[in-house]
Amino acid sequence: MAIVETSITPIGTAGTSVSKYVAKCHEVLKDFPEIKYQLTPMGTILEGDLKEILTLIEKMHEVPFDQGANRVSTLIKIDDRRDKNSTMEGKMESVLSKL
Amino acid sequence: MAIVETSITPIGTAGTSVSKYVAKCHEVLKDFPEIKYQLTPMGTILEGDLKEILTLIEKMHEVPFDQGANRVSTLIKIDDRRDKNSTMEGKMESVLSKL
Amino acid sequence: MAIVETSITPIGTAGTSVSKYVAKCHEVLKDFPEIKYQLTPMGTILEGDLKEILTLIEKMHEVPFDQGANRVSTLIKIDDRRDKNSTMEGKMESVLSKL
Amino acid sequence: MAIVETSITPIGTAGTSVSKYVAKCHEVLKDFPEIKYQLTPMGTILEGDLKEILTLIEKMHEVPFDQGANRVSTLIKIDDRRDKNSTMEGKMESVLSKL
Repeated sequence: MAIVETSITPIGTAGTSVSKYVAKCHEVLKDFPEIKYQLTPMGTILEGDLKEILTLIEKMHEVPFDQGANRVSTLIKIDDRRDKNSTMEGKMESVLSKL
Repeated sequence: MAIVETSITPIGTAGTSVSKYVAKCHEVLKDFPEIKYQLTPMGTILEGDLKEILTLIEKMHEVPFDQGANRVSTLIKIDDRRDKNSTMEGKMESVLSKL
Repeated sequence: MAIVETSITPIGTAGTSVSKYVAKCHEVLKDFPEIKYQLTPMGTILEGDLKEILTLIEKMHEVPFDQGANRVSTLIKIDDRRDKNSTMEGKMESVLSKL
Repeated sequence: MAIVETSITPIGTAGTSVSKYVAKCHEVLKDFPEIKYQLTPMGTILEGDLKEILTLIEKMHEVPFDQGANRVSTLIKIDDRRDKNSTMEGKMESVLSKL
């Protein structure tokens, strides 16, 4: 189980707003019901099987092209810990308990 | 006003857990009361004056060294929009309203 | 054809040096002869079919685990442009010609 | 001495090409002669005093706004190692010697 953050940004779209692209990317999540996710102001955080998450992100990355974009910049940050079961919730609690 | 995500990771610490470093980094936030922040499972999102946020991140980046780390990897992603006042809350709402 | 940068960092290894992990990751490149690559001081830049590049990075991401690491942080940045054939060399030339 | 990679991307510019922005950002480097740099197909790698590098990146981040962009996405990755003097050249050699 990995935790992965991604942000998908179309480049060279006439307007500065990208929320319609982000919203459309999120529809892909419906096809991956086993992947937990959290939307943040800077991206989407995903939790689940790494291979499946990467397949999901590949599909999300296609969405702005389908909407007319000609260039897409996608950032992916994988946090993969295998000495214990790491979850989004567990990571938050681990920090918050030490504050 | 910019929105900035950062994650600060010590490299070469004997253990795999980094939460004690993240928690200590968060103490720096107290010295920057005008900066809004949100902890996520993958980092910290900051909202406010860009110059001040970068000063804050510079201080956070020093914390793991103070705790004994010899190498620190820090990732910073700036989203700076100047055609309207962009906020963490506004960005979330903009996407959620389109879902 | 996409251009993708990646860096793969083991977390919680006793030493601060990560070059033995990076070198081992690079051996995976031999299995992907169609992917062009460039090593930089901060990561590896790959050029080729996006799907194949992501498969390659997935394999590279496993390498530090095989070498004993228990946690791996992998950063991937995809630049995917489809209105023209984008290459590492072409991107460099495009900037350098304007300097 | 830190090694820092940055990429500065205008969002919402009508065209997909960003090389004119990158080239203009590079002019700022002339004002920081002590900072070593290397252009790559995915960004710019800087070597020198961390505080000075962050000041430099702040100035580079302003450049696309001066050129008319209304939104700029800037990614910064800091590699700061203090148990030995780390350089771009040394990092490359360290990996290449193990291949």
